[in-house]
Amino acid sequence: MTVPPELNPADRLLCGPGPSNVSPSALAAMQRPMLGHLDPDLHDFLLQIVDQLRATYQARGGLVLPLQATGTSGMETGLASLVEPGDVVIVANAGFFGGRIAEIARRYGAEVIEIKAEFGQHVPNERLLDALDKQPNARLLAVVHAETSTGVRHPLRELGDAMRGRDTLLLADCVTSLGGVELDFDGWGIDYAYSCTQKCLGAPPGMSPVAVSDRALARIRSRKTPVPYSFDLQLLEAYWIHRPPVYHHTAPILHIYALHEALRQVSLEGLEARWQRHTDAGAFLQAALTERGLELLADPDHQLAPLTAVRVPEGVDGSRVQSRMLRNHGIEIGGGLGPSAPPIWRIGLMGQNARIEVAEHVLAAFDAVLAQESQFAALSGAASS
Amino acid sequence: MTVPPELNPADRLLCGPGPSNVSPSALAAMQRPMLGHLDPDLHDFLLQIVDQLRATYQARGGLVLPLQATGTSGMETGLASLVEPGDVVIVANAGFFGGRIAEIARRYGAEVIEIKAEFGQHVPNERLLDALDKQPNARLLAVVHAETSTGVRHPLRELGDAMRGRDTLLLADCVTSLGGVELDFDGWGIDYAYSCTQKCLGAPPGMSPVAVSDRALARIRSRKTPVPYSFDLQLLEAYWIHRPPVYHHTAPILHIYALHEALRQVSLEGLEARWQRHTDAGAFLQAALTERGLELLADPDHQLAPLTAVRVPEGVDGSRVQSRMLRNHGIEIGGGLGPSAPPIWRIGLMGQNARIEVAEHVLAAFDAVLAQESQFAALSGAASS
Repeated sequence: MTVPPELNPADRLLCGPGPSNVSPSALAAMQRPMLGHLDPDLHDFLLQIVDQLRATYQARGGLVLPLQATGTSGMETGLASLVEPGDVVIVANAGFFGGRIAEIARRYGAEVIEIKAEFGQHVPNERLLDALDKQPNARLLAVVHAETSTGVRHPLRELGDAMRGRDTLLLADCVTSLGGVELDFDGWGIDYAYSCTQKCLGAPPGMSPVAVSDRALARIRSRKTPVPYSFDLQLLEAYWIHRPPVYHHTAPILHIYALHEALRQVSLEGLEARWQRHTDAGAFLQAALTERGLELLADPDHQLAPLTAVRVPEGVDGSRVQSRMLRNHGIEIGGGLGPSAPPIWRIGLMGQNARIEVAEHVLAAFDAVLAQESQFAALSGAASS
Repeated sequence: MTVPPELNPADRLLCGPGPSNVSPSALAAMQRPMLGHLDPDLHDFLLQIVDQLRATYQARGGLVLPLQATGTSGMETGLASLVEPGDVVIVANAGFFGGRIAEIARRYGAEVIEIKAEFGQHVPNERLLDALDKQPNARLLAVVHAETSTGVRHPLRELGDAMRGRDTLLLADCVTSLGGVELDFDGWGIDYAYSCTQKCLGAPPGMSPVAVSDRALARIRSRKTPVPYSFDLQLLEAYWIHRPPVYHHTAPILHIYALHEALRQVSLEGLEARWQRHTDAGAFLQAALTERGLELLADPDHQLAPLTAVRVPEGVDGSRVQSRMLRNHGIEIGGGLGPSAPPIWRIGLMGQNARIEVAEHVLAAFDAVLAQESQFAALSGAASS
């Protein structure tokens, strides 16, 4: 066997659409002695994580736990659990992740009704409610609370209010919102939400916290067709919540440690203070970009704070700028996601990076790189005209 | 929000059925600067991991990569990818994980033929081949190379040899064998194998390395029904292998670092030396247990080295012994897995714990705890009679 070199990754300030840099105390927690997945001491930690996630989602009833999975698997767990073949699913598709919801729902045999909006917009609730009026037996209506591909926030509270009293379940992608953007699972009437650990929560990528309402659980219990074993929420509940726990899989202990500590940091800071910190950092960045004559992709009334999509000015090579940010300044920013994305950069200020100083650091590097782009002087004039 | 206490797990020597203690250098690798999942520097590391896994599985063709998943999800990915509704699947069920294969295959619509053996035995290849002769169109034959619930090794090489020339694919659970027990994916004609990172490889739990043969890939490409998105090996290949990579999910970067380093350690040691180290440690432990009058569960001709199941002598409280090992000596050993397991302990010597000194340490604690069990003196006489 050839022996590869030791890993020697360069330092990075991760200001793309995620992952964000891990909070130092969460990283340090991963070095603590590893317990086994059936160690009685571990199970207290699991329940503490569940309590903290309940507070972060504002979800008192139902089931809340983190999956050993990516955010996408959190999405898939919801669709696999709540959809049976032939069910009607209404999907608000205003970007890459709305499209992914539709694709996955189809894989589980759903009859998918996609209501689309342009990149940078959201699907107005009126259009979703119209679709629901035409399909009152729809099993599920799915929206992306924080569309990571565009930086747009869906008016989820208003949608939840308008859906109250209907049988259709409400599923929300909260991958880029949990811990960084106001979210009230119970208060807004959400039935299934999923997120990730590597964005606003400040833990490494590897888990997907999900919240499930009581009525969604009742639907799951009355399913006629099986779900994938890995995504079986009833079996996962038996491991995470029941005592003694019933073995389902070997839990990712070190990620659990990191998540425990990251959530502890959320508690120490306070949820509203954390949202506000994200709001302030995002607003600062967005104002500064606009002042520079750059155009933001998102409808300003629905701009997310943690993630800002910036249109690449005409004539500027967006991927060269990304590459120079990375190679010359050690800063990761994202580009457009998927073949239908317009030319954009995506700048994330999430978790510990949701700070004005980080925004200033990114802007300084961005200025330097854009100045290098020979055509930029002329073009930035054109973009701001 | 209530602030939970900081995590403060006790030190543990993990000598149960897994996880094992993480190798110190793999743990240290998790503290290196985190790159994003689309960082060009990361993609060299991914390909190095794939090369190392190919060497460890001895799989040159087909597709090899680690899933962001548990070992069970590695099992499920194989079944979901290779089985379509109505397919016949023959499963050798000689313990908990054979039973789990059958259960998951049924969830994907397979017509499952289970060939069972008692705990401690394996299903003889002749019985599997007989079943195959009766069902020559079976899509898949599944066995557990290293049954984690019993410590039994299936004669996989001989099965692969006997199946050569047949259309039926061979799936093997290598969760407790990869990196610790001789395994030759290509040479033995395996079509799909899955493992984990937290046992003989010495990384933390969180990923599942899988190997897929060329003919299994061809079957996957000609499927008529969709697979779960998270388990879509063609999409995973586009991220792990294609350059530039196509986004599928946010990869668990820190686990990837740990796995990279753990596999580097496998290369430095050499695969055969590593197998031999596991063999030596396991044989030492097994001889010492037998000398003490304890009875091993596994058929001695098919005893695994990394995992030893010991029958709890009559009158001894197995779970009290486990608890005393944990509380008084900081050593985790396992009990029986699942409701149908006989009263056993399971002792694992895997990864960095596959050493005579570790076996001696476990034995010393075990002696002390068994001496505490008041009835033991009389009972150990009975067990050895």
